[in-house]
Amino acid sequence: MTIKLKDNERIDDLQRNGYQIIQNRDGFCFGMDAVLLSGFAKVKPEEKAIDLGTGTGIIPILLEAKNQGLHYTGLEIQEEVADMAARSVALNHLEDKVTIVRGDIKEASRLFGAASFDVVTSNPPYMNDAHGLKNPDLPKAISRHEVLCTLEDVAREAAKLLRPGGRFYLVHRPHRLIEIITALKSAGMEPKRMKMVHPFVDKEANMVLIEAVRGGRSMIKVEAPVIVYKEPGVYTDEIYTIYGY
Amino acid sequence: MTIKLKDNERIDDLQRNGYQIIQNRDGFCFGMDAVLLSGFAKVKPEEKAIDLGTGTGIIPILLEAKNQGLHYTGLEIQEEVADMAARSVALNHLEDKVTIVRGDIKEASRLFGAASFDVVTSNPPYMNDAHGLKNPDLPKAISRHEVLCTLEDVAREAAKLLRPGGRFYLVHRPHRLIEIITALKSAGMEPKRMKMVHPFVDKEANMVLIEAVRGGRSMIKVEAPVIVYKEPGVYTDEIYTIYGY
Repeated sequence: MTIKLKDNERIDDLQRNGYQIIQNRDGFCFGMDAVLLSGFAKVKPEEKAIDLGTGTGIIPILLEAKNQGLHYTGLEIQEEVADMAARSVALNHLEDKVTIVRGDIKEASRLFGAASFDVVTSNPPYMNDAHGLKNPDLPKAISRHEVLCTLEDVAREAAKLLRPGGRFYLVHRPHRLIEIITALKSAGMEPKRMKMVHPFVDKEANMVLIEAVRGGRSMIKVEAPVIVYKEPGVYTDEIYTIYGY
Repeated sequence: MTIKLKDNERIDDLQRNGYQIIQNRDGFCFGMDAVLLSGFAKVKPEEKAIDLGTGTGIIPILLEAKNQGLHYTGLEIQEEVADMAARSVALNHLEDKVTIVRGDIKEASRLFGAASFDVVTSNPPYMNDAHGLKNPDLPKAISRHEVLCTLEDVAREAAKLLRPGGRFYLVHRPHRLIEIITALKSAGMEPKRMKMVHPFVDKEANMVLIEAVRGGRSMIKVEAPVIVYKEPGVYTDEIYTIYGY
């Protein structure tokens, strides 16, 4: 089978299992946040996972590479992006393990049914300033800003999709941590693990990874931080390990 | 003036301004948490601060050493402990700047009046397992376990004591972070700064420092972590700086 690339697309190596991914040169490309989330999340054998707002499909594809789960779904609202993610799945011959579905996060529990997954992941839009955007309908804006769904939408749908005791893994910006925790609690999920990501050991955190459990009791573990660089331009050993080099 | 020591008391050097502190050999001695909180908290010129559950008085004494605030109060419920803290204040000739008051945290806003402070600090009991204690009335148990006041009591009284825009600085255990945030929000305070303390860079956090503002809007900064040891038994430079060596 031949995978067709569009003019503005390129193929990148994922440095893991020989997997590759198709990305749009002009669009939103996956970042370190998606890679870190795929290392932070765990999918056990026989478990089913769904990624809300999957974009390129990077998260289900990396989760499949790193875990023994039964099946992975990626939900993406933008037609062209979902099509590109589906071609990446085919490119890696993962059609039996990974399914890309075009659809709206806000409708996810209606689409898939309540309590239908063991694991939900999401790298949602970080910015809640969509009202100030000049072109809120552009694909990049939809990936970065809460144009089509809010943090509360993501938390509510994640909780509905999860079986009791199921786990939600989220990567987000630390400046919204209190809103995130409030949204998770309101949706009936209890944050149980948290990991801060700092660009340098002496700089403030610029990402946060959170695991929340549907119906868990209040008790959280704040894990060792991820420190990205040991000096300017030089990754720490941990980052090289996560990236699979 | 001569400060009298009891048989079970000793004097320790605080490595700061030549200040010393009296501690009970058999009681609860101040720890790194109190020292870190006194470095994390800021008291501006003309501001008044109160420390809830002050114990030895370590926090108001160190805050006085490190800040230009107008006045510092330490509230302590245990008579013998409050008396010892007052003698430490006298030992350092700080009677004009630091006042130790014997009283109950749960009554604090009634004792001092609403909106009567710019800054509140607290290193409260960490453990919420008081029901399992054999001797819940012992001074050490009262310092460590929520025997006489809960996290919710501390948050409620802190919020009442603060003027609008006033700041609450808290040190606590990370495993209770979600409860802490919920209690702060319920009391009308918004967490604005957070700093995790990790014994080593690759170990989970064992303390968390939080600044919350009465009536603030939701936006938090997660600062660079404090890493205590660079190798077993060897403090990082940051800890030496904080300790004033």
